[in-house]
Amino acid sequence: MIFDVMTLFPEMIDYCMHESVIGRAVKKGIITVNCFNIRDYSTDRHRHVDDYPYGGGAGMVMQPGPIYDCYADIMAGKETKPRVVYLTPQGRIFDQPLANELAREEEIIFLCGHYEGVDERILEEIVTDNVSIGDYVLTGGEMPAMIMIDAIARQVEGVLGSSESAANDSFQDGLLEYPQYTRPEEFHGMRVPDVLLSGHHGNIDLWRRRQSLKRTLERRPDLLEKVRQSGGLSAEDRELLAGLQEEVPGSGQ
Amino acid sequence: MIFDVMTLFPEMIDYCMHESVIGRAVKKGIITVNCFNIRDYSTDRHRHVDDYPYGGGAGMVMQPGPIYDCYADIMAGKETKPRVVYLTPQGRIFDQPLANELAREEEIIFLCGHYEGVDERILEEIVTDNVSIGDYVLTGGEMPAMIMIDAIARQVEGVLGSSESAANDSFQDGLLEYPQYTRPEEFHGMRVPDVLLSGHHGNIDLWRRRQSLKRTLERRPDLLEKVRQSGGLSAEDRELLAGLQEEVPGSGQ
Repeated sequence: MIFDVMTLFPEMIDYCMHESVIGRAVKKGIITVNCFNIRDYSTDRHRHVDDYPYGGGAGMVMQPGPIYDCYADIMAGKETKPRVVYLTPQGRIFDQPLANELAREEEIIFLCGHYEGVDERILEEIVTDNVSIGDYVLTGGEMPAMIMIDAIARQVEGVLGSSESAANDSFQDGLLEYPQYTRPEEFHGMRVPDVLLSGHHGNIDLWRRRQSLKRTLERRPDLLEKVRQSGGLSAEDRELLAGLQEEVPGSGQ
Repeated sequence: MIFDVMTLFPEMIDYCMHESVIGRAVKKGIITVNCFNIRDYSTDRHRHVDDYPYGGGAGMVMQPGPIYDCYADIMAGKETKPRVVYLTPQGRIFDQPLANELAREEEIIFLCGHYEGVDERILEEIVTDNVSIGDYVLTGGEMPAMIMIDAIARQVEGVLGSSESAANDSFQDGLLEYPQYTRPEEFHGMRVPDVLLSGHHGNIDLWRRRQSLKRTLERRPDLLEKVRQSGGLSAEDRELLAGLQEEVPGSGQ
């Protein structure tokens, strides 16, 4: 899978995309991250890519010309147009279903904005998806693009090793993950729950499912409601939930 | 303001926190980002920091010991305990009000997890805030920590230059930002809206407010509803919105 990133900070993306799980997938050739420096497409001798906003106001706005020329360079020779994602607080909120959907694409182009924003006309012309990673404002689109690449790449076959697993991740079944414990058995007076040491897989699975339901009920009742509505709760889940109503304050229905 | 980051990838954070607006604030001494490598606190001769999960299952879990020793090192000599943020999909969703709130702290400690998670006991012992940057799963907590530092630092006095502005950002008044235009006046046959070239500030402000309302109505009616409920809409806003109902399909109330 190919990710093309149009940015003013290509080195930052290059650096981060060579670390950890994503870096390993790049080395194995499963994913490719191409960075394009928008500044290389400036026609100005000072390599400017921004100018004052029409109508006044603070900050600078990125001009449409260099972005278009950068985009045209990426598109040269391509027969189909990949999806073009613009990272913006004004976009559709990124979530796991969108990550899973985008993981089925062969190539995605990202446009990272900076300054006060990007000229609206280039967005209208080339962008297919306005996406926001959350309701907060950031300095630029680089970190959000890397967040999206990370979340998408994790879903691509072969990116996670055999000892890792995306299937148990939070959100894959709509619920939050159960708590995890590892050695030592006792830490600062706190012991690992006995059931996890019992070797009884049926009981362990039941305990984990109950913890998953409990945690989602406590922290994200909105997610639990979604799972309920989409029919994702078994008869056993509903029984476990009934038992949890007393334990979790304010969860009674 | 001080950010302490406990991580397995300190170089990645160091690198990114020296770019762009945040890098400038670090240079000016307005913010400090200290990275601590959790692996330096391993007591294992192979520098392991993770082990198999009790109860079985895929992946490895980060052990409580090295994290606690790293935390104790950061805390040495401090009289008050800073807030300790653990980046987890199971946390409270990060948003602009939380960024603004955290920007009033003097110091914040971040714990970045990896592998399948972190031993629950260390989280119970040291973490004050479980925070998620969104409903998607990532390889580790490093990029989310950088996202939070970026969003928080932008709200710290002196971090943005005089030519920049956080006040016009999306979300600061609960609405999405209006579209921006810069030179040239005509790009690929698309002209800058006439009003922005008129020099009439009253008309420009009115046009921008209307665009802000329109865009929020079209893309994020949930945000508009929040602003409405908190009394953030003026009589003029309500009049503009009434005029927009016909333009925006499905927005009739």
